[in-house]
Amino acid sequence: MGKPFVWETRIRFVDTDASGRIHYTSMFRHFEVAEQEFLREAGFPFSGPALEEYSFPRVHVECDYRSELRYDDLVQIAMRVERLGRTSYTLGFAVRCEGREAAVGRIVVVCISKREKKSTPIPAEFTAVLEGLVEASGG
Amino acid sequence: MGKPFVWETRIRFVDTDASGRIHYTSMFRHFEVAEQEFLREAGFPFSGPALEEYSFPRVHVECDYRSELRYDDLVQIAMRVERLGRTSYTLGFAVRCEGREAAVGRIVVVCISKREKKSTPIPAEFTAVLEGLVEASGG
Amino acid sequence: MGKPFVWETRIRFVDTDASGRIHYTSMFRHFEVAEQEFLREAGFPFSGPALEEYSFPRVHVECDYRSELRYDDLVQIAMRVERLGRTSYTLGFAVRCEGREAAVGRIVVVCISKREKKSTPIPAEFTAVLEGLVEASGG
Amino acid sequence: MGKPFVWETRIRFVDTDASGRIHYTSMFRHFEVAEQEFLREAGFPFSGPALEEYSFPRVHVECDYRSELRYDDLVQIAMRVERLGRTSYTLGFAVRCEGREAAVGRIVVVCISKREKKSTPIPAEFTAVLEGLVEASGG
Repeated sequence: MGKPFVWETRIRFVDTDASGRIHYTSMFRHFEVAEQEFLREAGFPFSGPALEEYSFPRVHVECDYRSELRYDDLVQIAMRVERLGRTSYTLGFAVRCEGREAAVGRIVVVCISKREKKSTPIPAEFTAVLEGLVEASGG
Repeated sequence: MGKPFVWETRIRFVDTDASGRIHYTSMFRHFEVAEQEFLREAGFPFSGPALEEYSFPRVHVECDYRSELRYDDLVQIAMRVERLGRTSYTLGFAVRCEGREAAVGRIVVVCISKREKKSTPIPAEFTAVLEGLVEASGG
Repeated sequence: MGKPFVWETRIRFVDTDASGRIHYTSMFRHFEVAEQEFLREAGFPFSGPALEEYSFPRVHVECDYRSELRYDDLVQIAMRVERLGRTSYTLGFAVRCEGREAAVGRIVVVCISKREKKSTPIPAEFTAVLEGLVEASGG
Repeated sequence: MGKPFVWETRIRFVDTDASGRIHYTSMFRHFEVAEQEFLREAGFPFSGPALEEYSFPRVHVECDYRSELRYDDLVQIAMRVERLGRTSYTLGFAVRCEGREAAVGRIVVVCISKREKKSTPIPAEFTAVLEGLVEASGG
């Protein structure tokens, strides 16, 4: 496989809990930032009028936590488009810290027409962005 | 002064951080729940059409942390309307835990007309709700 | 199956995002509160010395979002112990809102010895609490 | 005054709420990241043994919200050490977005001895880091 998009960040104090480690929900906040930056880099038109008709709710999320993460740990989040369907797609996330695997996650996103309030084909301009990323990942 | 609205809740695990105590931002989540439940009890029409024209952004927030709070601590949040103006109001919060003072906060809320995008008089039905609470607090 | 533990709560404003609906990560905060209250009701000794040697990190979490949730929606979170192993257990969550299914989640928790830094048998007093809940759920 | 430390970041989706704007509590998460990166840049020894005896709870926080922030807005957070006392210090934050003022905040931090469980002089190596930042800000 080709290169995924990699977002490097640090574990924040608000990400931790009284166990001294990251609170598991915090990882999803970092996944979301990776997605936002990945879309920007791929040229996604965040505020274009063409996208105002759509919303992209997450219908499934999961994460496996493989090793401890603590405050100020530097992590690399590698993100791929695992599956690109007609009305939905799946993002995959692999988190590493100091060379070890720290977490693996997956998020399934559906394209919804705000007007019809049901799933609808992903708009062509966005599919193009995601396709590029599948190729980049899978090539 | 009369009786404030009191919301009793517990500190959650996600509220804590690696210090072993509550993360300071978590207190504001609890203030928000107190406000929501206080408005409900006072008969606030959360989803009425009359309110769809308005938004209520917070323009100032502050909190003093007086003693430690830890996971599963039971807290009482007493809320008052400290000031009720024409286009804004101030909510005051006092948090106690096992008889001691734990935190004191204040939030200033402005009523904004979504259409005009500027501050506007608080609608009469909402002022009535808040007035009742000022009287209840201050009587 | 028997009766699960049910925690009733409302969607908070901080739980929502600019889509107008709940942000998916917020559901996990509600799951955590359900777990905390379920353990309390079952007699779990939150601060007992016997438990200070252990931590209970989550090694897998997942959630499927089946229908929209919005600010102030009243939800019922039904929680069961789906599996009780020697060193780990699985909690299952089913969320309903106004009679419809809103979300289904699952969290796998491992019992870790803080001293040995590896998985260890769940202490007997905690297993007893969880067993009671499996029977209550599965009877 | 001299140059403050400036942290540039973007508003994340999880930072927003159903108003379509940033939820006010999210700003404090960004302040915390600015503080963490500012300390790193100033050479703060995050994990040194000398600091394990101390904790740095926040005893007062406040924020004024001056203009709307929305998803994906690029913000610059300028941070200064406003006051450096013997056992406490005050951090000041000024947030700008596209040239306009978006928020102004202040956080008062106390140095606590974990062993004695009371305020204690800030350790010399940390005072040196903060002094450099006062000079850098105030020169």
